[in-house]
Amino acid sequence: MNTFEQLSQQEKNNLKQELDRRYESFRSKQLSLNMTRGVPAPEQLDLSNELLTCVTEHHYHSQKGVDCRNYGGVDGIPEAKELFAAYMEVATDEIVVAGNSSLNLMHDTFMRAMIKGVMKDEMPWSQQKDIKCICPAPGYDRHFSICDYLNIQMITVEMTDDGLNMDEIESLVANDEGIKGIWCVPKYSNPTGVTYTDEVVERLAAMKTKASDFRIFWDNAYAVHHLTDTPAQLMSILDACKRAGNPDRVYMFGSTAKITFAGAGVAVLAASEKNINWLRSQMIFQSIGPDKINQLRHVTFFKNIEGIHQLMKKHAQILKPKFDAVQTTLEKELGQKGIAQWTNPKGGYFTSINTPNGCAKKVVEMAKKAGVMLTPAGATYPYQKDPFDRNIRIAPSFPPKADIEKAIELLAICIQLAAIEN
Amino acid sequence: MNTFEQLSQQEKNNLKQELDRRYESFRSKQLSLNMTRGVPAPEQLDLSNELLTCVTEHHYHSQKGVDCRNYGGVDGIPEAKELFAAYMEVATDEIVVAGNSSLNLMHDTFMRAMIKGVMKDEMPWSQQKDIKCICPAPGYDRHFSICDYLNIQMITVEMTDDGLNMDEIESLVANDEGIKGIWCVPKYSNPTGVTYTDEVVERLAAMKTKASDFRIFWDNAYAVHHLTDTPAQLMSILDACKRAGNPDRVYMFGSTAKITFAGAGVAVLAASEKNINWLRSQMIFQSIGPDKINQLRHVTFFKNIEGIHQLMKKHAQILKPKFDAVQTTLEKELGQKGIAQWTNPKGGYFTSINTPNGCAKKVVEMAKKAGVMLTPAGATYPYQKDPFDRNIRIAPSFPPKADIEKAIELLAICIQLAAIEN
Repeated sequence: MNTFEQLSQQEKNNLKQELDRRYESFRSKQLSLNMTRGVPAPEQLDLSNELLTCVTEHHYHSQKGVDCRNYGGVDGIPEAKELFAAYMEVATDEIVVAGNSSLNLMHDTFMRAMIKGVMKDEMPWSQQKDIKCICPAPGYDRHFSICDYLNIQMITVEMTDDGLNMDEIESLVANDEGIKGIWCVPKYSNPTGVTYTDEVVERLAAMKTKASDFRIFWDNAYAVHHLTDTPAQLMSILDACKRAGNPDRVYMFGSTAKITFAGAGVAVLAASEKNINWLRSQMIFQSIGPDKINQLRHVTFFKNIEGIHQLMKKHAQILKPKFDAVQTTLEKELGQKGIAQWTNPKGGYFTSINTPNGCAKKVVEMAKKAGVMLTPAGATYPYQKDPFDRNIRIAPSFPPKADIEKAIELLAICIQLAAIEN
Repeated sequence: MNTFEQLSQQEKNNLKQELDRRYESFRSKQLSLNMTRGVPAPEQLDLSNELLTCVTEHHYHSQKGVDCRNYGGVDGIPEAKELFAAYMEVATDEIVVAGNSSLNLMHDTFMRAMIKGVMKDEMPWSQQKDIKCICPAPGYDRHFSICDYLNIQMITVEMTDDGLNMDEIESLVANDEGIKGIWCVPKYSNPTGVTYTDEVVERLAAMKTKASDFRIFWDNAYAVHHLTDTPAQLMSILDACKRAGNPDRVYMFGSTAKITFAGAGVAVLAASEKNINWLRSQMIFQSIGPDKINQLRHVTFFKNIEGIHQLMKKHAQILKPKFDAVQTTLEKELGQKGIAQWTNPKGGYFTSINTPNGCAKKVVEMAKKAGVMLTPAGATYPYQKDPFDRNIRIAPSFPPKADIEKAIELLAICIQLAAIEN
């Protein structure tokens, strides 16, 4: 097969005619497929249905006898701390087990940094001028939204195959006191699927930052969300920070949103004991405590960390065929044509595809007109501005496999049409 | 019986001897009773045990077919909005149904006001100088803590029998642009048990405030928490605000913490549609949505507002004898002695008692030494400073009746001893 570059004008015209015909055929079918967000499928949620009824009127006490129905315990019940400390690879005094949303914990951690600073002697971010956050991109739109909401200037740093361009990042943080943080999805990254190398983790932990109140926002959303039998290994950033003499540099976040129930899971924040103490000393003003019953449900359901890993294998069985369908369809439609590059993730929730520069918006628009909703082009970049207008995030978890095949076929048609028109 | 004032020195000495003897007798028993917080008793929590298992693997969809296990719906499921709109006496577009903690909603509403201001065109509170909040006292310590945390200056206004000293409040807000808010527990107030009169509600709604970004934080924590068959009536503040041309003046909060489970209930925020839209436009940065499963549990359990009222009658049956025990014991020990005034609440969670001035700290300390933990003296005032050192909050909900009788007897002994020593 020839790449698009090698095609003659006549061949291009013929191909375009054929693609137009296929596109119109899709349009006439009036599909209504939604591939916009990384949402678990119902059959994934079914895996945790036992969670709904495993705490009963005969079992609502924690192991230490705490009545989980009642008030108290701002940082979670002890057995939940134990379970999720194992999950986050930290000690039990380095974790807070909270409500149902890790985004909530991230947002609130930013809010506290704005209002109170990241530690007792540090100035609140809101009282400092021109504060900024490094946003590796393509990345997670909801991270960027928090910065945008708080008027924190975002500095886009293009993702690499290793995850991060550490040379660029080191140079930025060494020279600008206004840079207060960096967003990271270190494992099976949203959307590129990359897992940070040990070198990247160690350089993040050790790099010199001009700001003394710099923090890494480590959203380990896909820590156990493997698609293969050879899980990616991610070095512990907290350990690396401790080794580098920067123990308080990182806030780590996680949740069971994509393990148990997306809307009714348990979220956690892990960090150095000093960070946790500082944050907990403020959390007491926010709430008398999280939903302990739901924490007890999770502990009862999982029993231990092995229970989490077992469940994740069942998730993989459901997700893998869908991710494979994306690969197969993209390969079949776009392979060897030299117009698009896409990832083949070993975990997480997304496949990321780069169209020819200047085509992503057009492609998403065309797909929409034919009934397939994709994540808006640009969403994976700060300010929704993809400098190359090329990145599209594919979220194949929710739709059935047959729908994914149709949606990706249409996507491929749109990409080819846009490439020809370009 | 003589009042303390009428006693001769000899009578006082004799009484003191007798009280000392009784106090020592208590000490020797080494009690360990905790009356510090308004915490539901286990038998109250038992009333809602059905909640634990009423959502099952066969029932997790909302009426409109939303899978409550999954992501989505930042402001609550429609049927929960309906139920709690009825509870808060507002329209369904005037409410957000959230997680398990109304304190969390209050805290976050303050945080948003600090960071973003209370409306699009208003300046963030954190960018204004010397901002202040009116704190009617005695009041709820966790309200005051939020102000203290945010360095918002608190202005203490002494509570009256009607609830609020409106002359003083009107004068304050009319003349100081720095006054941005007022905390209110308008029904069965914590701790005085008072319910605001219609006049107080109307004056709050209509008063001229120098600050255009003034807000009432209306913590209606005990809206349906009656102890008698003749519930107190509270005028709708939102309606009053609308009538007065200040529809956006009030944020109202409520929760099922003291209806179903204190730690695993549902919390709500109600306000004008404009306020709700402004807040919701920010909530989307904080979370993808609350725990919808727990909202569905509550709707399934209650069915409708009548279900809530029925449940509250059962709570009253448990609580009333405890509150009666407080009254009976106080009356027996302190009645006619002219040294203490206490409330006889018709609802809510507290009895409030005023000792002779300058005695509250001493009394709480003495009770502690004899094994009864009371809410720290001063806690009911901003900065933990009761200007008269006289107010003590009694929280009789949790302990068994026999323990309450012992605790209150000891409290009365301590008050008398302190009064004599004064």
